[in-house]
Amino acid sequence: MPKNAFYAQSGGVTAVINATACGLIETARNHPDKIGKVYAGRNGIIGALTEDLIDTSQESDEAIAALRHTPAGAFGSCRFKLKGLDQSRAEYERLIEVFKAHDIGYFFYNGGGDSQDTSHKISQIGEKMGYPITCVGVPKTVDNDLPITDNCPGFGSVAKYVAVSIREASFDVASMAKTSTKIFVMEVMGRHAGWIAAAGGIAAEKEGDAPHLILFPEIVFDQEKFLAKVDNAVKKYGYCSIVVSEGVKNKEGKFLAEAGSRDAFGHAQLGGVAPVVAQLIKDSLGYKYHWAVADYLQRAARHIASKTDVDQAYALGKAAVELAIAGKNAVMPTIVRTSNNPYQWEIGSANLADVANVEKMMPMEYISEDGFGITEPCREYLQPLILGEDYPPYQNGLPQYVVLKNAGVPKKLSTTYELK
Amino acid sequence: MPKNAFYAQSGGVTAVINATACGLIETARNHPDKIGKVYAGRNGIIGALTEDLIDTSQESDEAIAALRHTPAGAFGSCRFKLKGLDQSRAEYERLIEVFKAHDIGYFFYNGGGDSQDTSHKISQIGEKMGYPITCVGVPKTVDNDLPITDNCPGFGSVAKYVAVSIREASFDVASMAKTSTKIFVMEVMGRHAGWIAAAGGIAAEKEGDAPHLILFPEIVFDQEKFLAKVDNAVKKYGYCSIVVSEGVKNKEGKFLAEAGSRDAFGHAQLGGVAPVVAQLIKDSLGYKYHWAVADYLQRAARHIASKTDVDQAYALGKAAVELAIAGKNAVMPTIVRTSNNPYQWEIGSANLADVANVEKMMPMEYISEDGFGITEPCREYLQPLILGEDYPPYQNGLPQYVVLKNAGVPKKLSTTYELK
Repeated sequence: MPKNAFYAQSGGVTAVINATACGLIETARNHPDKIGKVYAGRNGIIGALTEDLIDTSQESDEAIAALRHTPAGAFGSCRFKLKGLDQSRAEYERLIEVFKAHDIGYFFYNGGGDSQDTSHKISQIGEKMGYPITCVGVPKTVDNDLPITDNCPGFGSVAKYVAVSIREASFDVASMAKTSTKIFVMEVMGRHAGWIAAAGGIAAEKEGDAPHLILFPEIVFDQEKFLAKVDNAVKKYGYCSIVVSEGVKNKEGKFLAEAGSRDAFGHAQLGGVAPVVAQLIKDSLGYKYHWAVADYLQRAARHIASKTDVDQAYALGKAAVELAIAGKNAVMPTIVRTSNNPYQWEIGSANLADVANVEKMMPMEYISEDGFGITEPCREYLQPLILGEDYPPYQNGLPQYVVLKNAGVPKKLSTTYELK
Repeated sequence: MPKNAFYAQSGGVTAVINATACGLIETARNHPDKIGKVYAGRNGIIGALTEDLIDTSQESDEAIAALRHTPAGAFGSCRFKLKGLDQSRAEYERLIEVFKAHDIGYFFYNGGGDSQDTSHKISQIGEKMGYPITCVGVPKTVDNDLPITDNCPGFGSVAKYVAVSIREASFDVASMAKTSTKIFVMEVMGRHAGWIAAAGGIAAEKEGDAPHLILFPEIVFDQEKFLAKVDNAVKKYGYCSIVVSEGVKNKEGKFLAEAGSRDAFGHAQLGGVAPVVAQLIKDSLGYKYHWAVADYLQRAARHIASKTDVDQAYALGKAAVELAIAGKNAVMPTIVRTSNNPYQWEIGSANLADVANVEKMMPMEYISEDGFGITEPCREYLQPLILGEDYPPYQNGLPQYVVLKNAGVPKKLSTTYELK
């Protein structure tokens, strides 16, 4: 009897993490001699700790196929980081107890940096705790901050959403600027790195195109220089379109979002950074503004996902299973870019030991010298990641996203586990 | 020699107002015996007053065709309302001066309620001021508040954007709710009427579907009742997804957006209403939240435009020309719904006298009894308006929107006009 597999989604979800689940489950179904059932953790790793497993074998082939075009985490995700074996042996003992009870021999963990760290720890329990398990990390993060892999699935679709959205809203502002709004500020995700903000820059293909300015978390906010740039753009182009990362900080190292707004009771951080930047421009230069905060819309926007991103997300799920049945432990499939133009990529693999606890920052040479734009090398890196469209099916004007049955696997243990 | 036509875009732009321009210009080009050149006002009616006309005959057929898939106002729009003939005779005299100089015999004004009022006034200058001109209003407004026409072009695409976006973001929140965000609040446009907020309701097709609550400008905000509903949704479904109209007011008649936030200097109205509602929930119920403000993204989102909306916008532009060359003055083409299921529509026409200064409010029977959702009649009305997708062409991963040459018509007048 082949061993069963455990699969969990971890951390913030994306427009394509379910495409990875789709690739993984479909590939496992193609190898019934090697892999028994795929059990998914309900709400991520918490599902393993609490023996709350989902039996994906009860989903039809059609439902699993529909995961490819469904955003967010179909099995639920969580923000829960396992501590080290030394600090929290009980957690690992509990995992082994559950894995053993359900005859689980494969562990697939689909997440970002923290999750790959967890995968790495779990890959060691065979050796350290005598429970043999093949552990494969599967990359996912809109933050694009995993090392070794050329890019992270999830990022390309956010990048496309941001580039398309700022282009569209800027067309709007340009139309209205003569007598009305002259400033548009769009806030995007990326608390630590400017990858997503940089993606807005792809929309500007020639001199004068929007966005005119990008505020990166990597660059300390220089109010005077910024306002001069804004004023210059308005005078030159009639309007100014700005992408601002939620992570932009002032020279005291404080997030601008926090430095700015107070609610009626004096609480900080009611609003985001976009209204702060917009109001600053209004107060200093007098221009009428509009602002948007895309928030979850950007990372859930499966309707405008990048085909490249969807294909890669699927391929990584497939590769994870192939690595596992080839007996590779403690690895993570990666995207390897083999050519920029035409863009070509293939699947590679990395050791989890080299992935865990390494954060890939955006290279400083991707930010233009003045600090408010992207460079050509940045564009060459980013552009391929948004290539292609991969529209979901529609019915009654709405995208048809699948909601799985998510039937539970009957519990086998009499023990329970209290989450800490 | 046939007379030339003047066309102007007015007020806030939409994802499909250029589709109307496309229908209008293409149809005019098909009738060279009846209409000479189509001159567009640069930045709307201001272009007429300042003799700043755009010669659309210098644009290629391909460029005009591309307007059909390009959002925003290709010739520029403005917020500028002509006063009545009695109050501001000089404005009308100036218009006649410009029209006469450029041999303009047709006037097409593409806008919302205020613009139709202007169209109506201009339709009277033949009789009242002795300058014969055929004046046709062309409807456009995301607010969906024009009378007689079943719906307004521009609204269907915003409606689709809002329904798709809240569905996607709610899938995201549902995935994360176990350990993280339980509340998602999305702010949408509609200061006076809840049409756009109601559109979010289409995304909920069965019990438990998001959005769980809608806050309408038509319903006074009842904090206690609202919080109880939110808490109930979280307990029942694990999370609560909310669409809030920017126009929602408290019982003192103040916008919630203004009632809530203050910037660091004590200024009101830094943020929108979404963060105010989200913070209120956090303070009262303790749930972690995320919020989004779509702002211009929603009305510029040509990438997810409703095909029905695009088709209707085009058809109205075409019909405007057909009415004009049939010699109809002081009219506006309309959408007439002839069947709900299957949805069918045709073009009708209304007298501008009946359109001017009449605002169509959302019927109260479209709002559910508890005040937080939409009714079946509302769904029946809204659903057809978001039917079908009409994707723009893409290149390098980005939608290819046209930027016209917008070559100016040489001025013929030695006089200038100072805008008031």
